[in-house]
Formats: sequence, C-alpha cells, structure tokens
Amino acid sequence: MSIFSRPTAVNLSDAAIKLKEIISKAASTVTVPESVFQAYIEAAEIMLDDDVATNKAIGSHGANFLQHQQNNSKRFSVLTHCNTGSLATAGYGTALGVIRALHAQGVLERAYCTETRPFNQGSRLTAFELVHEKIPATLIADSAAAALMKEDRVDAVIVGADRVTANGDTANKIGTYSLALCAMHHHIPFYVAAPLTSIDLSLSSGQEIVIEERSAKELLHTRGGLGEQVAASGISVWNPAFDVTPANLIAGIITEKGVITKNDMKDDAFDIKDFIEKATGKSTV
Amino acid sequence: MSIFSRPTAVNLSDAAIKLKEIISKAASTVTVPESVFQAYIEAAEIMLDDDVATNKAIGSHGANFLQHQQNNSKRFSVLTHCNTGSLATAGYGTALGVIRALHAQGVLERAYCTETRPFNQGSRLTAFELVHEKIPATLIADSAAAALMKEDRVDAVIVGADRVTANGDTANKIGTYSLALCAMHHHIPFYVAAPLTSIDLSLSSGQEIVIEERSAKELLHTRGGLGEQVAASGISVWNPAFDVTPANLIAGIITEKGVITKNDMKDDAFDIKDFIEKATGKSTV
Repeated sequence: MSIFSRPTAVNLSDAAIKLKEIISKAASTVTVPESVFQAYIEAAEIMLDDDVATNKAIGSHGANFLQHQQNNSKRFSVLTHCNTGSLATAGYGTALGVIRALHAQGVLERAYCTETRPFNQGSRLTAFELVHEKIPATLIADSAAAALMKEDRVDAVIVGADRVTANGDTANKIGTYSLALCAMHHHIPFYVAAPLTSIDLSLSSGQEIVIEERSAKELLHTRGGLGEQVAASGISVWNPAFDVTPANLIAGIITEKGVITKNDMKDDAFDIKDFIEKATGKSTV
Repeated sequence: MSIFSRPTAVNLSDAAIKLKEIISKAASTVTVPESVFQAYIEAAEIMLDDDVATNKAIGSHGANFLQHQQNNSKRFSVLTHCNTGSLATAGYGTALGVIRALHAQGVLERAYCTETRPFNQGSRLTAFELVHEKIPATLIADSAAAALMKEDRVDAVIVGADRVTANGDTANKIGTYSLALCAMHHHIPFYVAAPLTSIDLSLSSGQEIVIEERSAKELLHTRGGLGEQVAASGISVWNPAFDVTPANLIAGIITEKGVITKNDMKDDAFDIKDFIEKATGKSTV
C-alpha cells in the first residue's frame, strides 16, 4: 500500500497515511525495531477488520434500500462495472457487497457484469467472484450495456467509486459515465457504493479531479498489455483510467452509514457534508 | 458470399441473390459450364466496381454535408465504430469512406475509432486502414467514448449500418446504440452511412429486426474466441452481434444518392421511401 497510490483512489491514500502515522509513532516510542513491525501488522489487521465491517454495512444498507425502491418486483437484476469485490476491496466488496447482500436476501434475479476494458477487471475478477459465490451472473461487453437496458433486463446499476467529491460527482473506472448516461435514458436508477473514506470534501466537484492516463499497451495487446499484440501497429491511443460521472446522473450514494439521497428542498442535489456530519456526529469543517 | 449471410446485413443477401439469378440465367442459356463461371466472375466484377463507386459517392456526399453542417470550425474530428472501410466493404468504405473524403478535403482534424469489442474490428481493421492512409487517428476503448465526447473532442459520430428500416431505425454492430445515446446527451450529431441496398423498406421499424447472438467464446477468450482464455471459467455470457439505434437518435443517413435528413413538416421523422423514389426515379411500392 503506497501513499502514492492512484490519485483518484482517496480511500487508499487515506489508509496509507494512517499506517504511516502508526509506524512513525511506534518508531519513536518502542525500543526494538521488531515492535515497529508488530505495531504495523496489528494496525493493518484492525483496518482490514474495519474495512470488512464497512463493506458489510454498505451491502446491507444498499440491499435494504434497493428492496424498498423496487417494491413492485420481488426479484430484480443489477448491472455492475469493473471489480469492487473481495479481490479489490477487503473481503466483501462495495458495489459487489450490495450484490452479495441482495443475493443472500433472496431478491437478486441476476447480476450482469461488464467486461471492463481494457484491463478486464469485470471478466477476470468480478465474473470469478460471482461464479465462486454461485450468484446467477452474466458477462457482457461494455458496449452491450445500452442494448441490455433497452431489453428491460436491468433494474438498477451499481458501481463503486475511486473518489466522490463534495457535490456527489464520482470518479470511477472508465466506462462508468457511459453506463450512467445509458441508465438515465432508460429510467434505470444508478447508484454509487463507496465507504465514507472515498468521499473527498476538499474537492467541490468532479472538475477538480485529475484523470490518470494509462499505457497504450493495454489496448494494443491482450492481457492488459502483457499478451500478444492485437491492434494495428502505429495507431495512437487514448486510454484514460477513469471518468467522472456527474451527480445529476446518480440516484444515491450507498455508504456504511446509509444511503445518501438527493434533497428535494435543495435543487435535487446531494448534501453530502450534512449527511457525514449527522452520521458521524463530527463537524467536517 | 452466401445467401444465408448474417440476417441483419441486407446488402450482402441482396448481392448474393443478384449473383444467384445471374448464375441461374447463364446456366439455362449457355452451352458449356465454363460460361456459367465466366458470367459469374463478370457480374461480380461489375458489382465490385459499382460498390466502389457507391462508396465513393457516400464519402463525397457525407463529407460535403458535414462541412456544411460544421461551418463554424474549419477542421473537425469524428468518431467511428467497428470497421466500415475497404476491409469490410468494397475498397473505399461507407462511414470510413466519409472519413477518407473529409481527410482528402483537408478538413479532418482527427478520426477516433473504438476498439469494437468483442471482435476488435476497430483496433484490428479500422486502425490498420487509418494508419495505412496516414489519417490522424486515435484508438479508444468502447467505454471511453462518452468521456471523449465530454471533453469536447468529437464533432460528429459516423457509423455504418447492417440494415436500415423504413423509419430509419438502424441495426449495426453492438455498441452503436450506446454511442448514439452518448452523442445525443452531448449534442453531437450522429450519422449513419450506408448504401441504399442496406435500406429494407419491408421492415417498418427496428422492432422487426432479429438480433444475431454470437459465441460466448468471443468474450471469454482473446482474439475473438481463438486465443487464450481471459474471463473466469463458468460465467455465462450475453453476446449480441448487433443492436438497434432508433431513428430519433440519428441526424442523417448518408447514401450514395445524398443525405437523408428529417422532415420538419412530418414530426421530425425520416421519409426514406420518398427519398428513394425521388433519388432513383422508381416507385418503391
């Protein structure tokens, strides 16, 4: 875990900073170097337990909320993007945690996962977890999502987040924005599932988020750039790792403290700061 | 060329039927079998020449129309999907024919081509043709198109068509519908480039088009199903070859006889039958 983790993934750098502080404190108070290592391991284990508990709370809040929203249909299907499961988070998952909880509650008809080009986190990781958990699941090409929605086969879209800004704009894996646009057109609710540590109140909107560009090789070669060349030689590539989905396309943000919804009284906008203050009992200023 | 070609590709079956008639006629009039073969080759060569001329006319009409529409910007960029170039059509291309013509006229800033999962026609074929023709070009993941549009880097989207129905609904490679939705949201005009033979007046709308589903292997393995397995074992797959873009998302249909636009007097709908009758001087009834 590096403090120089992906700039959009605020929860990772948050965790790295906490661990750095623990090591620094331990180094100045203990007498043998082994104790620093021991303090680090203990802190990391507590953080892992906390993360699992956070993810399970996200899953539970999300599943209950979705069931309440979808009161007309007993079982429903959701579409997710990228990997937000135990292979990417801490043993349960965020968006995939909600899917796990829906399945556990017996209300999930089917989970659809996108391939998630160019790194195939969906077809490699999410598909693996869904098969492993025996959750009814179907893989689609990213570009097939709109056609799937048009066939009325998706009741909700749930994605994770690398970073959520103060107004609810959400940076997430490339393709998220496209899914949100298609969902809006088909009147399908679009949810973001993320721990409160992914919310960065220091950024007022998504316009302040810098998008990482990744290697052209991910598109030119198979296996995320490690395999054989597929694309034509000499073609230039634009390979942004993330995109930003504006808050106006997001129906709710599912956190471990509950689901942040829009405030009808405030121009149909999220009041995330207020939610966090009430949920944590702490001022965010 | 088979009469049992892809059900959506009406122009292919049209060509196959024409050739079958020629063979049938030759077989009943000539005395030696070689003459049947000779008649077939001659007819196919004429059809190829006709196809190239048709494509060049599509390119020319499209480029002129786009230049007229984009009168504020001297050079502009277009996004295309799948392969509609000389590797898929007859030596010049439909949507790619328009791009070639724009480039030849010196008004093309850049062509963006999607990877076009799962068979990668964009990254393998379109990218190859663009590089070969020295057209400034950039490859993107299908899912990155919305983010590209949001950055104001696309002035028009131009795609081909497998089949256009009487009302203008268009069946084309999976992902076309998603691009059309994203283009609409960003107020970017979306064009279909196709010869008149791709228009099937016997179908009133896209609801009558049957979509071919292709092998799960295309998503599970690299190289369109022929390469190594990438996706998790046991995952089910939905792999439609095409989707249908409704006419209301299409700004114009670029044909070899000119660009079919919408009739303001008729509920902003295409009057394709009227266009064909006027363009060909023949009744379509």
